[in-house]
Amino acid sequence: MEKEPLLMLPGPVPMPERVRYAMMRQAINHRSAEFGAVYADCVRVLKTVFGTNNDLFVISGSGTAGMEAAVANFGRDKEIACLVNGKFGERLFKISQRYGKAHEIGSPWGTPLDLAALETQLEAGAGIVTLVHNETSAGIKNPAQEVGRLARKYDALFVMDGITSIGGDLVEADKWDVDVAIVGSQKCLAAPAGLAAISVSPRAWDRLVKNPPYYLDLAAYRKSAAGKPMETPYTPAVPLFLALQEACLIVEEEGIANRIARHQKMARAMRAAANAWGLSLFPHLDAKHEYSTTVTAFSYPEGIKDDEMRAAVKKLGIIIAGGQDHLKGKIFRIGSMGAVSAPEILATLAATQYALKKLGYAVKGDGVQAAAEVLG
Amino acid sequence: MEKEPLLMLPGPVPMPERVRYAMMRQAINHRSAEFGAVYADCVRVLKTVFGTNNDLFVISGSGTAGMEAAVANFGRDKEIACLVNGKFGERLFKISQRYGKAHEIGSPWGTPLDLAALETQLEAGAGIVTLVHNETSAGIKNPAQEVGRLARKYDALFVMDGITSIGGDLVEADKWDVDVAIVGSQKCLAAPAGLAAISVSPRAWDRLVKNPPYYLDLAAYRKSAAGKPMETPYTPAVPLFLALQEACLIVEEEGIANRIARHQKMARAMRAAANAWGLSLFPHLDAKHEYSTTVTAFSYPEGIKDDEMRAAVKKLGIIIAGGQDHLKGKIFRIGSMGAVSAPEILATLAATQYALKKLGYAVKGDGVQAAAEVLG
Repeated sequence: MEKEPLLMLPGPVPMPERVRYAMMRQAINHRSAEFGAVYADCVRVLKTVFGTNNDLFVISGSGTAGMEAAVANFGRDKEIACLVNGKFGERLFKISQRYGKAHEIGSPWGTPLDLAALETQLEAGAGIVTLVHNETSAGIKNPAQEVGRLARKYDALFVMDGITSIGGDLVEADKWDVDVAIVGSQKCLAAPAGLAAISVSPRAWDRLVKNPPYYLDLAAYRKSAAGKPMETPYTPAVPLFLALQEACLIVEEEGIANRIARHQKMARAMRAAANAWGLSLFPHLDAKHEYSTTVTAFSYPEGIKDDEMRAAVKKLGIIIAGGQDHLKGKIFRIGSMGAVSAPEILATLAATQYALKKLGYAVKGDGVQAAAEVLG
Repeated sequence: MEKEPLLMLPGPVPMPERVRYAMMRQAINHRSAEFGAVYADCVRVLKTVFGTNNDLFVISGSGTAGMEAAVANFGRDKEIACLVNGKFGERLFKISQRYGKAHEIGSPWGTPLDLAALETQLEAGAGIVTLVHNETSAGIKNPAQEVGRLARKYDALFVMDGITSIGGDLVEADKWDVDVAIVGSQKCLAAPAGLAAISVSPRAWDRLVKNPPYYLDLAAYRKSAAGKPMETPYTPAVPLFLALQEACLIVEEEGIANRIARHQKMARAMRAAANAWGLSLFPHLDAKHEYSTTVTAFSYPEGIKDDEMRAAVKKLGIIIAGGQDHLKGKIFRIGSMGAVSAPEILATLAATQYALKKLGYAVKGDGVQAAAEVLG
């Protein structure tokens, strides 16, 4: 097989060899001390990247399963205030509609959230708030701490989708009053797709609903995790746990502070390139609002076609993302999450710069050089 | 690392090298023609082992997620008749209680089902029937074709858990009037744990309910699978799909008829050993009822302790299963599913015979020799 292309998507992301090779082990019994130790390693490290002392479980399912577990176990039949400024906020809203009375507090994709409207909804009695911390569809980071403060002020639960921030950007779930936080395995943790981790605060446990979906019943997860050995209630995706364990050990070795600093530097390099090129970022944010640390969304200049641009980059062995839904053709997105560092960023920006020029965009300056100056 | 023990459980089971090595690939984009072709390979082969021309999807979740998808998409607010003669029948009943009005039609574990009681329930208006085809907790195979005939007679849907039979034992979902069938990846298919596949008949689609759990919404699976490339609605567990593809190709190479014959022969060898030893099988069945083809449940003789017996076998590098729930200490179970064949069966029976003797059970005759005669 030819060398795999370099995936510079907002997930899935390239996995370190150690992570990939962990999966090729022969099957092991998931009701064993050996598996229990694997699970315990994951939980120990994940608690540090979540910034939490709360209970934490790993679900064999994608990030969406984790989002649904949060809403289904704590939101059924409640008034749910859903903050939406991108595709994944919309998804949390759609999930919430299946369980409770969901109120969409919407802003156009990539624009700041309407926290005044949230407060109105909380005053009106919303019992739970959902937020996507890092909205990859639009390249914006949302103010989790402020949302947590508001939710707590009105005694509502705060569910935070940290699927694409946790493990790469700063998250302090406990300090931010996050009651339920979720991460996906194939994002900043650089593990394979297929697992979600979810943390649950004591306040959330106190408000646990009856009869969530059986497969996502967090009370069952709690019971099995408390056993000796530590277990999952249903058969776990063992190879993915082995890979996640290795990915977590790598996070621990790097140190979470170093890991966050690396991600922040990569994002600054991306923005420096955009600035050098004279290309607009998709979200137009003032200094009070924040760009995503793990994915950068660029607006296409007039006349540059999405399929041609990404094909030219792909020909150089690199996959970048287009826009989703109504942003298709209007933006392109480059992920900078997980195990990647300067070489991948420089290669990707060089390929992007080449493609922009080739397709007729007159770049103002050298974005690759500007990025290297940030990274160096 | 020392050599891994030989897992002779009713799943997970040893994986062929080709299957394990498929997982160590670098991450690939799951919204790509390449992934679509992987998914399509899985579906093509799985339809043959299900014996179905119906739609078929792969869910990133364990067999339990597949069971819940079946009940949640087709059973909500309905009268559900649940046939129960073991642990997994109980699980389907518990899941059914979360969605509809579930009626347990229970028999003691490992005893034949009460089909007269099922008919009464169908006459009273049950709209859906659940059955575990192969009940691993008790080593019994249930009469799926008869259940299918009854369900169809009363125009009810028939949900069949074929988690531990499909891919190893004869299943003809369409001929047996199965509307929804489910398999788990880590059983007869000898793939890693973490995926479930589910087939859906046109009759079932006609009765699709609204608002199943979001992650298990089969209408979303149908829509994504119909796309070009073929996709899953949410991020799939890519390494597990790569492994399942390889496992399916191996099934295709062996040929499903050969594979079933191999499983049936292994089960006969197990029963020949029990008979030679003078040991009772756990289910006491007359000629009209069938033992499981993929796991054999043996009753412990007086005085043999479960933990000592399994520890002695484990010391020889082989893991066999005890009983579950109220059968703990009363039975032991040996799986014979997936990629195993004569060497693994002979080694396991030799270790078991050694342990029985060592712990003071006077075997009547040589079970290993009796099994070899069946296998040879």
